[in-house]
Order: sequence, then C-alpha cells, then structure tokens
Amino acid sequence: MAHDTTKRREALRESLIGLAEAQVRADGLASLRARTLAKEAGCAVGAIYNVFDDMTGLTLAVNGRTFGRLGKHVSDAVAKVADAPPTERLVAMAIAYLEFASANPNLWRALFDVEMSTDRDVPEWYMQELGRLFAIIAQPLSELHPDPEPGEIDLMTRALFSSVHGIVLLGLENRISAVPRERMEGMIEFLLKRATAT
Amino acid sequence: MAHDTTKRREALRESLIGLAEAQVRADGLASLRARTLAKEAGCAVGAIYNVFDDMTGLTLAVNGRTFGRLGKHVSDAVAKVADAPPTERLVAMAIAYLEFASANPNLWRALFDVEMSTDRDVPEWYMQELGRLFAIIAQPLSELHPDPEPGEIDLMTRALFSSVHGIVLLGLENRISAVPRERMEGMIEFLLKRATAT
Repeated sequence: MAHDTTKRREALRESLIGLAEAQVRADGLASLRARTLAKEAGCAVGAIYNVFDDMTGLTLAVNGRTFGRLGKHVSDAVAKVADAPPTERLVAMAIAYLEFASANPNLWRALFDVEMSTDRDVPEWYMQELGRLFAIIAQPLSELHPDPEPGEIDLMTRALFSSVHGIVLLGLENRISAVPRERMEGMIEFLLKRATAT
Repeated sequence: MAHDTTKRREALRESLIGLAEAQVRADGLASLRARTLAKEAGCAVGAIYNVFDDMTGLTLAVNGRTFGRLGKHVSDAVAKVADAPPTERLVAMAIAYLEFASANPNLWRALFDVEMSTDRDVPEWYMQELGRLFAIIAQPLSELHPDPEPGEIDLMTRALFSSVHGIVLLGLENRISAVPRERMEGMIEFLLKRATAT
C-alpha cells in the first residue's frame, strides 16, 4: 500500500515535469500555471504541492532536465573534436551552446530566469549539474595553463562562460541588438581566440 | 488653445515617464500597470494612450532616460582616465557599467527586457542612443587597431560589450552564479586585457 503510494507519487512527479517542460518550451517560464498543469495532469492543484515544495521546485526539476540535455549537447560537440587544440575545443563548446540556446530558447531562458530567493537553498543536485558544465569548460583551460594561480582556472571558466552567454543572449533574444548567426559565431571565435592566446 | 493642449499633453507625458520610471526602479518592468499609473497621474487610463502608442512606447521613453544616464556615467568614468592606455580606459568603462547596473538593477534590466515584436519599428532616437554607447567603446578599440578590416571594430565592440554584459548579468542577477563584486572586476579585467592584447 505504502509502496503503491510511492509509485503513484513518482508517476505524478514525472508526469508534472513532462507537462511543465512542454509548457515552458512552448510559451516560456512565465506561462507556467499550477491550475493549468493540474488540469492537464488530471490531479488537484493541491496534489502538485504534495510532490513539489512550490512551483519553483517544479521549475528546478524542469531545469535539471534541460541542464542534462545541454551538457550532453556540449559534450558531444567536444567529443567530435577531441584531438583539436584546446582553443578549438572551447570554440566548439561555445558554438554548441549557441545551437542549444537557438533550438530551445524558452527552456534555455528558464535556466537563468528561475526565481531563487537568497534564503532558499539551491538543491545539491542543481549545483552538481552546474559544476559538471563548468568542468567541461575548465578542461581545455587547464591544458593551456598547466601551472595556474589558485582560483585562476575557475575565474577564467566563469568569465568565458559569462561572456559567451552574453553574446548568445544579446544576439538571440534582444531584437535591438540581434545579429545574424554567422556574426555571433565570429564574435565567439574572436573572443575565445583572444582570451586563450598564450 | 491648441497650444495649451500641446503643453498639457507634454506635461502629462513627462509626468507619466517620471511615474513609470519610479515604478520600474522600485519594482521592475513587470510591475508596470496602466491602471496604477493613471491613478497616480490623476488621468484616465485612455489618456495614457493619447500620449504613447502603447505601454511599450512608455517603457522606451523610460529606457531613453536610463540610456542617457548610463551613457553619462560611463563617459564620466572614461574622462577621469582620458590619458590612460586604451585597455585601461575599456576596463574603466566596464567597471562603470557594472556600477550602474548594481546601483540601478531594475532600470538596467528594463533596457534589455522590453518587449519588442519584430514587426515594431525601433524608434530612431533609440538606435542613436545605442549607437552613442557603442561609439564610446569603439574609440579605444580603434586606437588599438588603427588599420582594421571592414567591420572588425564593430564586431569587437559588440563582442566585448556583450561579454561584459554577460559577466555583469550572471554576476549580479543570478543567485546560483552570483559572485562577489571584486571577483566580477577580476573577470572583467582578465577578459578585456586578454581580448585587447596586441
């Protein structure tokens, strides 16, 4: 009996994540509504809060899937150029990041737009997913700087991730500064080649 | 009589921009409501739409003021180091950008979050404000590259602006990647020194 309850709860959880993911993909994070989801899942609104602490908890679960897919897309792109010099691998990752953001604009935006109050603990698994993404970037940087100052690789990793993110964000999303895809790739190459020249 | 109408209209326009600016500054762009503004301005909701095409038109007017203040803050910072080498001037601009964003987070976010449908013409004056900001960045880059390829300075300007924007955005706004101010400055210096090394 307790076992059945756990199974039902788990099934509802998976169903809600899938429905929320479809909603965010189609219309963005701001369109997510507990009432609509409950209707689609065939459950009461209150049942959602039996499974997730709040709607942010559900959004984090959706983002967890997106992180996983993004990480796989970037890793696959790097694997194809595994023998290339570090800078070329970084460019391949950044282009893969641009591709993922282009193909999944709403899911990608939700990774950054999720509301997290400072008093809310960010779940451990979330930080691990983030850490995995940063580790992929840190690898070629470590090869370029085999004897770094303490914290140097981490600072470069975050600076370059943030920079590529800024280029992709303003290039894709903001219509007043939107630039053709080819030009975004040009900016990414300019930036990474310059930043990693030794 | 027609003159009085024009003056009243202009006064209402200024009043609405001021009220909207205060609202965006306090609670962000998403909190802007025609009904609330009309109440504060002591006018009918319809009167707002006699002065602005729509709420986006009002937001653009608020953003125009913010652009002006941001441009002044950045220009003033550069003026203080007018005799420094180009890279140091770029760093001073970027730090000034970080300061402005830190001090005016909601107004700064509104510059990028305003909804512009692709079929809406971006006003000429808006593009000019943007052009002025980019010209400030392009100046030291032109000194570093006195004989650029066609389009090279523009690409570098946009790439570096977007990169600094990304560092400031993720550093300030996103709690899962928030970093101390000093570290953001470190990332900005790393990036700009690397990117502009000749």
